[in-house]
Amino acid sequence: MNRVINFSAGPSALPLEVLEAAQKETVCYKDSGMSVMEMSHRSKVYEEIIGETEKDLRALMNIPDNYKVLFLQGGASLQFAMIPLNLSKKGSADYVNTGLWSKKAIAEAKKLGKVNVVASSEDTTFNYIPKLDSNKFDDSADYFHITLNNTIYGTRFTKSKIPDTKNVPLVTDASSIILSEDIDVKKFGLIYAGAQKNMAPAGVVAVIIREDLLDIAKDDILSMMSYKIHADNDSMFNTPPTYSIYVMGLVFKWLLKMGGVPAIQKRNEEKGKVIYDFLDNSKLFKATVAADDRSLMNVPFVTGNPDLDAKFVKESSNNGFLNLKGHRSVGGMRASMYNAIDVGQVTALVDFMKKFEKENV
Amino acid sequence: MNRVINFSAGPSALPLEVLEAAQKETVCYKDSGMSVMEMSHRSKVYEEIIGETEKDLRALMNIPDNYKVLFLQGGASLQFAMIPLNLSKKGSADYVNTGLWSKKAIAEAKKLGKVNVVASSEDTTFNYIPKLDSNKFDDSADYFHITLNNTIYGTRFTKSKIPDTKNVPLVTDASSIILSEDIDVKKFGLIYAGAQKNMAPAGVVAVIIREDLLDIAKDDILSMMSYKIHADNDSMFNTPPTYSIYVMGLVFKWLLKMGGVPAIQKRNEEKGKVIYDFLDNSKLFKATVAADDRSLMNVPFVTGNPDLDAKFVKESSNNGFLNLKGHRSVGGMRASMYNAIDVGQVTALVDFMKKFEKENV
Repeated sequence: MNRVINFSAGPSALPLEVLEAAQKETVCYKDSGMSVMEMSHRSKVYEEIIGETEKDLRALMNIPDNYKVLFLQGGASLQFAMIPLNLSKKGSADYVNTGLWSKKAIAEAKKLGKVNVVASSEDTTFNYIPKLDSNKFDDSADYFHITLNNTIYGTRFTKSKIPDTKNVPLVTDASSIILSEDIDVKKFGLIYAGAQKNMAPAGVVAVIIREDLLDIAKDDILSMMSYKIHADNDSMFNTPPTYSIYVMGLVFKWLLKMGGVPAIQKRNEEKGKVIYDFLDNSKLFKATVAADDRSLMNVPFVTGNPDLDAKFVKESSNNGFLNLKGHRSVGGMRASMYNAIDVGQVTALVDFMKKFEKENV
Repeated sequence: MNRVINFSAGPSALPLEVLEAAQKETVCYKDSGMSVMEMSHRSKVYEEIIGETEKDLRALMNIPDNYKVLFLQGGASLQFAMIPLNLSKKGSADYVNTGLWSKKAIAEAKKLGKVNVVASSEDTTFNYIPKLDSNKFDDSADYFHITLNNTIYGTRFTKSKIPDTKNVPLVTDASSIILSEDIDVKKFGLIYAGAQKNMAPAGVVAVIIREDLLDIAKDDILSMMSYKIHADNDSMFNTPPTYSIYVMGLVFKWLLKMGGVPAIQKRNEEKGKVIYDFLDNSKLFKATVAADDRSLMNVPFVTGNPDLDAKFVKESSNNGFLNLKGHRSVGGMRASMYNAIDVGQVTALVDFMKKFEKENV
């Protein structure tokens, strides 16, 4: 076994301990006599697994009791539709446009109602978080949507930039930031996050929703689109993605053992310092994102020369640093350094970049 | 490791060889340096996995070239809504009601249009497949829906009972029968099947759709609900449930190695003969389903005495035969004997039933 360092934007690296624990139990989980993949979702043994997983997420994120936690299918992409379907009263919502995923969320919402784009950073390929002018907010909007961390462009809403939307529920796509740093759940009406970046194999999306928002949808809403139906059935209205949820549970145990979100946040800040300090002083590479808005999870960078970028991607891959090619809409490089990536792995990448710099400047 | 015999209705038993192959590769897939769980769905290595999986399903089911194969999320339950959303022109469809899952499909379709229930077997707790009178079919219906095998009640449409719906596309829920016996794909406009019974861990649903049906939906359909969008993106419009699809691929390889659908069908017929012959001659147990309509995958049976049923479920479980309790809407027992269950395991169950019969008659 010769493991690479995997900087994929998602699905992405999982902690080796988690994979080894899953491997050990693949054929037979504890004394159940079967794999988790084979378990009825309604069996006692599986109900314990999903129950523990929810309990651990609640502990990790300090989720208040008046929030439901749902484990659903369809990823963030289905959430883009479920949110307007479930939260619309007036039929109009505020959105901030900070990149491709915001745009996708906006496009789905427009099929179902009115969208007021209160701010955008599209003017400079989304390399910053736009300043929000609360005068542009609609006080009676059904909800206010932000993408908390922008996977492709490497920006994030730092704490001070998260808007105060008063009585309008704040909704956020937290797919690429959940559990990497403290998120104050109370500030949000709804948080959703595809699991395939910081939590689990692809196929499950976590939805954290304030209970009062469960009762807005019309009675004739399609069953699978209804948060209320999923909540009333404890995420078991239909067969949930049982194995992905189980691996997610292993990741949560790993995080708790490490010291929870405060500990991993400290580690992520260290990782960020290692790579951004290098980028800000490099003669070859530079970070593309405004200093105040930089993501700790996704770090885009360029040389300024597409040929040299391509050479770097190729050589880094040959040296065991995988998936560093930037998204096609941005070009250059991107290192996605989710929770499973440790400081040593980022340092190894920076060492390789230093070597490349020396050889190519 | 002490594996039980798992008669769960779904998620259900997987072939031991498949689990062992998955276990071997959990931490590192071939020379990729990572787990399949960690792979970008857009990487070359993963594209090969999903491509092979589709190719093998096409081979196993003889799927004609004018059908698309999609691997989606949300299970059969989301299909109940996607079907009317995608296939409605006139806004009316024909359904046959053969059980709880048919009823759920009908309920969702009713939210979106008119439903004409052409036949039902609800009068006797769905223990037979109703005779279909083609005079009741609507020649201009958008589609005609049947549940090919009824997991809870243990009935199936045998070949001769599958209706000829002429120009109306025949749509079927094949969740608990797919790949267990020959299905003539050409007869159907759309076949869908949750994978967690005969194919894979929960979290993926296969949709086999005739290409001309992709162009009916309105342009403003929600993206995640659109077959056309998923087809145009080769099931990669959003991140697919990558690991479930990988395990599904291992199951397909296992089936191909065994001799494909003809070989597994023969084995399933043998299994059926072992248990139904016993039930038809038992002094204690009896099958609940009309002889002509019996499922080979789900075998409900009763003693006629609820206390004795409960005693049997308990003792069988203590002896390593798991999940034999019948669905709450039927009572009694049910043995789900999907492809991963072999003749020896069914024989072992029957031997145990004989012993129980001797002790309790």
